[in-house]
Amino acid sequence: MERAAVFHRPVDNLAYLLEEKTMHIRLKTKANDLNEALLIHGDPYIWENGEWKYNVARMYLVGSDEVHDYWEIKVFSETNRIRYGFKLISNDEQIVYTEKGFYSEAPNDSDYYFCFPYLHSNDIFEAPSWVKDTVWYQIFPERFANGDPSINPPTAKAWGSEPPAINNFFGGDFAGVIQHLDYLSDLGINGIYFTPVFQASSNHKYDTINYLEIDPQFGDKESLKLLVKQCHKRGIKVMLDAVFNHSGYYFPPFQDVLINGESSRYKEWFHIHDFPVRGGERPNYEAFGFVESMPKLNTANPEVKKYLLDVGAYWIEEYDIDGWRLDVANEVDHHFWREFRTVVKNIKPDIYILGEIWHDSMPWLRGDEFDAVMNYPFKTNLFNLLVNESISSRQFVENITQVYYNYPKNVFDYTFNLVGSHDTARVLTECDNNINKTKQIFTVLLTFMGTPCIYYGDEIGLTGGQDPGCRECMEWDESKHNLEMKTHIKTLIKLRKQEKLLANEGSVRFIRPSSENGIFGYEKFNDDYSLLVLFNPSQTEQALDLDQTSKYDLLYSDTKSFNSTAISLNGYGFAIIKKNASVVV
Amino acid sequence: MERAAVFHRPVDNLAYLLEEKTMHIRLKTKANDLNEALLIHGDPYIWENGEWKYNVARMYLVGSDEVHDYWEIKVFSETNRIRYGFKLISNDEQIVYTEKGFYSEAPNDSDYYFCFPYLHSNDIFEAPSWVKDTVWYQIFPERFANGDPSINPPTAKAWGSEPPAINNFFGGDFAGVIQHLDYLSDLGINGIYFTPVFQASSNHKYDTINYLEIDPQFGDKESLKLLVKQCHKRGIKVMLDAVFNHSGYYFPPFQDVLINGESSRYKEWFHIHDFPVRGGERPNYEAFGFVESMPKLNTANPEVKKYLLDVGAYWIEEYDIDGWRLDVANEVDHHFWREFRTVVKNIKPDIYILGEIWHDSMPWLRGDEFDAVMNYPFKTNLFNLLVNESISSRQFVENITQVYYNYPKNVFDYTFNLVGSHDTARVLTECDNNINKTKQIFTVLLTFMGTPCIYYGDEIGLTGGQDPGCRECMEWDESKHNLEMKTHIKTLIKLRKQEKLLANEGSVRFIRPSSENGIFGYEKFNDDYSLLVLFNPSQTEQALDLDQTSKYDLLYSDTKSFNSTAISLNGYGFAIIKKNASVVV
Repeated sequence: MERAAVFHRPVDNLAYLLEEKTMHIRLKTKANDLNEALLIHGDPYIWENGEWKYNVARMYLVGSDEVHDYWEIKVFSETNRIRYGFKLISNDEQIVYTEKGFYSEAPNDSDYYFCFPYLHSNDIFEAPSWVKDTVWYQIFPERFANGDPSINPPTAKAWGSEPPAINNFFGGDFAGVIQHLDYLSDLGINGIYFTPVFQASSNHKYDTINYLEIDPQFGDKESLKLLVKQCHKRGIKVMLDAVFNHSGYYFPPFQDVLINGESSRYKEWFHIHDFPVRGGERPNYEAFGFVESMPKLNTANPEVKKYLLDVGAYWIEEYDIDGWRLDVANEVDHHFWREFRTVVKNIKPDIYILGEIWHDSMPWLRGDEFDAVMNYPFKTNLFNLLVNESISSRQFVENITQVYYNYPKNVFDYTFNLVGSHDTARVLTECDNNINKTKQIFTVLLTFMGTPCIYYGDEIGLTGGQDPGCRECMEWDESKHNLEMKTHIKTLIKLRKQEKLLANEGSVRFIRPSSENGIFGYEKFNDDYSLLVLFNPSQTEQALDLDQTSKYDLLYSDTKSFNSTAISLNGYGFAIIKKNASVVV
Repeated sequence: MERAAVFHRPVDNLAYLLEEKTMHIRLKTKANDLNEALLIHGDPYIWENGEWKYNVARMYLVGSDEVHDYWEIKVFSETNRIRYGFKLISNDEQIVYTEKGFYSEAPNDSDYYFCFPYLHSNDIFEAPSWVKDTVWYQIFPERFANGDPSINPPTAKAWGSEPPAINNFFGGDFAGVIQHLDYLSDLGINGIYFTPVFQASSNHKYDTINYLEIDPQFGDKESLKLLVKQCHKRGIKVMLDAVFNHSGYYFPPFQDVLINGESSRYKEWFHIHDFPVRGGERPNYEAFGFVESMPKLNTANPEVKKYLLDVGAYWIEEYDIDGWRLDVANEVDHHFWREFRTVVKNIKPDIYILGEIWHDSMPWLRGDEFDAVMNYPFKTNLFNLLVNESISSRQFVENITQVYYNYPKNVFDYTFNLVGSHDTARVLTECDNNINKTKQIFTVLLTFMGTPCIYYGDEIGLTGGQDPGCRECMEWDESKHNLEMKTHIKTLIKLRKQEKLLANEGSVRFIRPSSENGIFGYEKFNDDYSLLVLFNPSQTEQALDLDQTSKYDLLYSDTKSFNSTAISLNGYGFAIIKKNASVVV
């Protein structure tokens, strides 16, 4: 057995509360090294005849990647206390793995074992429960709909009259969104994520000038109030985007520093290395990247902290928003985010806090900072498989398995999945207008673990390259909508609402293809039944044998043939199948 | 290369801020598997000709245990941002390890790499700086000194007139402590940890009745105020012990629940399963262990939380104490401790928060809960080596290496080391009165990483078995003091104060013995020089060759022979040697 590869620590994704008196314990070992892993567990204070009294339970091999096997078990503790170790069985040996090391026999003193001292319900990671059932829709307000031409920016062009450019405007606004809320409801959307709406000079508004004012091209505070009300009336949640890492160049405190230099009363609001302040390629102040127009805010300064926390509170208290999406969240200090969570959750306990983090995000997802992060590893791997074709479906499953087991289940259940945004080329364009590939990508998005977000217009087949190409005006002429795409997405959303297993009301197992680029997918299951979601990542038809101890119902597919023993999928085809509890054969 | 054993994640002990713009990055690999590990690192936003611009630096093999090698590097980032990966070189291959997996060549896109997005100074783990220089002394107040017989408990016996028993009293009090502060100063003590002093019925006072009153057998609030003042005058810090996990049986709210059952207004202060309340072997309420007299407090109840947080604040605000030692800290919820930290640090930013945790304590040491925990793995391993002789010195070094690299350096620098307490038999008794072994144990205690705590009376050779044996009355007749022991401890404390490397002002390397039970130790070093601390764990003399490129000075030892090429240590002997910067040979 490869002892050096055996890993457990009672932290983060490896040991966590799942629900009251219940926890998940996971173990990582070398791939294909063990035949079995058992959990030795008990209350540390229950002894008999001078020996610790423990139970032994079988762990499940829940996933594998190229180098590791992942083992998991759900453990219940009536007394809320658990100490535990692992009995590992390979072909050549049996050993016991504890906090103090490896032993040939299980030590009979609970002190040797890993410890999860007390299962406190209030330490369970809990994001707002409504999020699981939410299908998000991302709106870039300048380009969704122009409902009130009277507030158009002076240089606004006629809607869709020219391609999106870095500096052009088309006059999208809140009134336009309100006019099309029924369209969104009809699609099945029940959450809108708005990119920034606060006063700023660009068309994307990430360059905040005033965090406490709505940009006049979108409307005023009353129109936001109305928008939120109209959304809530339809059961649609509203999430705004906040840029707390840096301000815009024209944020008055930064302008004050530029003008007054060392004597500015705002000089400690930023990280100025020395005076006079210089911009250019390497500004002498901290910025996002090295971009002179995005000066980094000093969130350790109590004045700045108070200002930004007040912003966080204001839009919830006064406008009843339901979520904050936090831009460049990883570059702001942890202290700030802990206080931010306390402040906003005190006002609205079920507010959703979503951080933009592209890399491993564990430190922000321990229950004291964010409810979720944007799941970029999901998008990257999916596109590497289907768009770039740089990884095989087997590698996709392995990579995703690794990402999945890097987080507690109840964290991953809330991860924010996306397949396109204002920062990336449109999916359909990325897929070279291959609608089957695009439909496959949306099938993954809407059936995967986590919560899905659709970038405005993707559902009707908008195209466009990298930013600014992907920020075209929304098409409101229905005759120009791609109906195949729209019907597909509506069907999937409806199915997600019907089948709670798709909305994370159960567990998941990945289906690792037997051949390098074979059919892959995942099985979502509870105690009663499961859903198989299968994909053919190649352009040629492939078939998969079905385990004959179960009964199957095809819920949705573009499949060629399906019967109780096998399913055959078209090139880039998919199938969602209900698998009923095993039947006796 | 054994890829399954290669492990890094940008969390906890593996990647952390060390000081401004500087972090530690660590990597775990299979023992003896790699020849070299290099760090690939750079600012994610610095690119050249379409490729990420990174630096490469050599990592140090800082420790090894039976199965793993530990690699470490200190990295500086002028721009405060780091992305990084590892280049691993073994006899048979070179591979690059990143967040996204293993590659044969270093990817030229920073997105592939591990990320430490921004080095914020306020995210550095910082315990109060005075703690590093503190030599603690643990006082069990009932048994240290009786300074005011007028407040003796009614059943008090004459001082030391009988052996300590579970229920006897001798009248130790605050006045007694004040009378002997000069004794402690003379010894070199500059911190006192008092076991509980709040109103309680037992002699150990862990069964709190009133968290806001001093037990009358120790004095009153004025006498505590005087005690703290007298301590501070001598530069001695004062730490009190709080039992927030459970109350005593006679805590009025619990008595109220016992009397009024379901109609008690305190029924939500505890975790009562059902009514009527039953004690016995398995009480129908949560308790410490299953002990009916120690009902667990419901720290998730806002009323209880407020009550206990007020207690935490009160003794700092009114009596200016310097530290809280938290009993059974691991079984209280994380939410409570986060709030506790916020409350007490707001009042006194350099208050020391010390948790009693016996097992892996990482989740409490992330900067938002405790400053330190009591280092039981240190005591257990040291006693297994020297007292129980159940592990070899090689295993000792391996076990301690593993524990050490399980925490960030700046966390371990503050760990609270002990070799005896009111809960364990006396060191000298454990060592079968072998004074050489005992002296060796104290040499480790006072030169190890972390901060040392001496249990009252150990310094003069008090003996005693398991509790209550170890709670004997302090001996104040100097003619009965073990002077060899006392001189030894005084010498070590003095040396610790002179040589800042002993008080954690540098780094450490473990010295792993070449033979199973050979001479072991550690080297504490800075850029200029180092201190070698060496021990012979066997009863027979052993020698160690010294590296001849350095110059050596013997600072303190009971060694037989020492010269520039070798040192010979007596059975259970020790040596502290200053090793000067390499000399050219």
